[in-house]
Amino acid sequence: MTVRVTRRYRFSASHRLHSDQLNDQQNDRTYGKCNNPHGHGHNYVLEVTVAGPVDSQTGLAVDGAALDQLVYQEIIRRYDHRNLNEELPEYRDTGLVPTTENVLACVEDRLQRAWHPGWPKLARVRLLETNNNTFERQLT
Amino acid sequence: MTVRVTRRYRFSASHRLHSDQLNDQQNDRTYGKCNNPHGHGHNYVLEVTVAGPVDSQTGLAVDGAALDQLVYQEIIRRYDHRNLNEELPEYRDTGLVPTTENVLACVEDRLQRAWHPGWPKLARVRLLETNNNTFERQLT
Amino acid sequence: MTVRVTRRYRFSASHRLHSDQLNDQQNDRTYGKCNNPHGHGHNYVLEVTVAGPVDSQTGLAVDGAALDQLVYQEIIRRYDHRNLNEELPEYRDTGLVPTTENVLACVEDRLQRAWHPGWPKLARVRLLETNNNTFERQLT
Amino acid sequence: MTVRVTRRYRFSASHRLHSDQLNDQQNDRTYGKCNNPHGHGHNYVLEVTVAGPVDSQTGLAVDGAALDQLVYQEIIRRYDHRNLNEELPEYRDTGLVPTTENVLACVEDRLQRAWHPGWPKLARVRLLETNNNTFERQLT
Amino acid sequence: MTVRVTRRYRFSASHRLHSDQLNDQQNDRTYGKCNNPHGHGHNYVLEVTVAGPVDSQTGLAVDGAALDQLVYQEIIRRYDHRNLNEELPEYRDTGLVPTTENVLACVEDRLQRAWHPGWPKLARVRLLETNNNTFERQLT
Amino acid sequence: MTVRVTRRYRFSASHRLHSDQLNDQQNDRTYGKCNNPHGHGHNYVLEVTVAGPVDSQTGLAVDGAALDQLVYQEIIRRYDHRNLNEELPEYRDTGLVPTTENVLACVEDRLQRAWHPGWPKLARVRLLETNNNTFERQLT
Repeated sequence: MTVRVTRRYRFSASHRLHSDQLNDQQNDRTYGKCNNPHGHGHNYVLEVTVAGPVDSQTGLAVDGAALDQLVYQEIIRRYDHRNLNEELPEYRDTGLVPTTENVLACVEDRLQRAWHPGWPKLARVRLLETNNNTFERQLT
Repeated sequence: MTVRVTRRYRFSASHRLHSDQLNDQQNDRTYGKCNNPHGHGHNYVLEVTVAGPVDSQTGLAVDGAALDQLVYQEIIRRYDHRNLNEELPEYRDTGLVPTTENVLACVEDRLQRAWHPGWPKLARVRLLETNNNTFERQLT
Repeated sequence: MTVRVTRRYRFSASHRLHSDQLNDQQNDRTYGKCNNPHGHGHNYVLEVTVAGPVDSQTGLAVDGAALDQLVYQEIIRRYDHRNLNEELPEYRDTGLVPTTENVLACVEDRLQRAWHPGWPKLARVRLLETNNNTFERQLT
Repeated sequence: MTVRVTRRYRFSASHRLHSDQLNDQQNDRTYGKCNNPHGHGHNYVLEVTVAGPVDSQTGLAVDGAALDQLVYQEIIRRYDHRNLNEELPEYRDTGLVPTTENVLACVEDRLQRAWHPGWPKLARVRLLETNNNTFERQLT
Repeated sequence: MTVRVTRRYRFSASHRLHSDQLNDQQNDRTYGKCNNPHGHGHNYVLEVTVAGPVDSQTGLAVDGAALDQLVYQEIIRRYDHRNLNEELPEYRDTGLVPTTENVLACVEDRLQRAWHPGWPKLARVRLLETNNNTFERQLT
Repeated sequence: MTVRVTRRYRFSASHRLHSDQLNDQQNDRTYGKCNNPHGHGHNYVLEVTVAGPVDSQTGLAVDGAALDQLVYQEIIRRYDHRNLNEELPEYRDTGLVPTTENVLACVEDRLQRAWHPGWPKLARVRLLETNNNTFERQLT
């Protein structure tokens, strides 16, 4: 029997949406008020979903404490109370715009690289920028 | 890389559930207190999900402002602070009962017709009648 | 030791805001889209707060089941799935406009009349029309 | 046209996570503070999703009142205000650990057995242990 | 300038409502399903409100980290994942029934005893047993 | 009859907590991770409460649309998608640290200055930095 288990995490961060590949007018048209040069911020909610069989002995599908530790180590510790553009090398050093779409991709990539080989699969990552604006990737 | 983006909208409306194809006793048995001839109302929440690739230049999968405008123009402007049975032609002129199932279908149909050809696909529509009662259509 | 105990209830209803003491233009200016002649509706949340001493034997400040029964009998049963203008005599027969302010006053009045003499006091009534629009009366 | 309809239910229960197949140290390492011999508790939220065609006459995909009655009879009445380990035979008499994974499986099994043959399919069961910890099974 | 600052905490616990001063029939009539001998549980939310002047140098009214530490040390560490009747001496050794009213009083008392002399005043304690059932004490 | 009416607004902004009157070590000890030189951000929720008599003709205590317009003009338009330290003169030009306590005071001051003389009184301002961290000023 397979179960999907989702755990929620939170971090507060600031960002500015601005692409070096666009001129000022294009940046303004593309990102609107999110292009404000001084940036702005959000309370992000991150949901990590794992899908796997339930262990018949323990009745568990995932080691929640171990998952929390990995998400904290790889994501929350790095993102919480940070300016994404200026402090995280994945955006600062590459010109990658920290849109929530790109943040989601970076989060997924980092979780996948650190994922324990014996764990059930990462099934979905979801990021809420606000309560009315959600981004997700279905992986299985 | 494909992302699913969901945006939330709200409207308040009233409706009455009553089918011309049923007699009074059948209407009462089918709809219960929702068959009350004077109607009642809800604060509906509409979630629109779009699925598409992330543009490598902008880091965006969807133009949120353009989507908001389309949803406002096609749905919110027409449904908010309205009596669905008496004011919206899709129900008033056809006898279609404004159950949340049918409202969802009408919303989807209207969004699909107005959808911009170049946009990523409409992936899901979801309608919350109350916090405990949700209706959705998975389109991709 | 005195404690304030708040219990939440829900009802869905429709209403129209229109005052017989105003002309059409005034009604439109005063109520905007809420003046729509066909009405609209909401999922209302009602919070009832009671303040009283904690009984040393039972450790309770209020009999929750009895309070629920009174609120159901006096308010929820009468308001849920109703059109306030056309079905409730306090509005239909008096011309009282069912604004949330007036609904709150009627709810308070009705609770006070039916209140059990031995009960702790009704301390506050609060009505949420939407999550962003709340009305309350502090009574003690 | 097919719609997915989700209804939410709530119950409060206590449990203790402890497997007879593990020794004390293993139980402690596996379940942490949830292994506390005296147990603890949660306000669980149960979501039941049904997927089926919309009836063209009634505009409904599911008889909500009938579904509520079945879920109440089979699940809420049995789980609410209970100690899962000591009062429900599916855990007490079998040694099955009432992890939320196992509770979800038992809930699904019980709903499936009692499901009305003519009803649309049970499409998903979801259980929230807390707002940050969710378990689900996609059935269709 | 005085500000009220409220911080939220969470703990999951189980309890049984049963008074030694009442006979079985009275206990049943008083507590209903909460009198179930095996107990049940909740996800409690605790809100602690502090009222004090804003420091002109720092712009803060309260040291949030220090408050968190005190609430964790005095309350969360002791209540989370516990059976209140059997594990906490304030109920186990005294016969005090762990109704939410009494839990609130014990929480307030314990916070007051540990309160730092130089801190702004404890202004309110609030405890949510469920989202629909809240208990509070206004202290200033 | 007097009613308290509360309306909710939202803005997303970034800030950094750092006082020119403190040295680096003091700033770090006082503000912790909020002292990060690059700043971070939040989705703020602002609640504005007005208390006044219900007009017997209209059944209203406040002109909601006019209040919304004032709050938008004075607060939301200025704060949304902004870096408080670098863009708002009340912080940038004065060295006032944009703690939520100080933001609340500035919001209240600005609303009071722009308040219409004939309006019912501003009774409370409340600011949620996160769902677990709330700041309020009771004015009446």
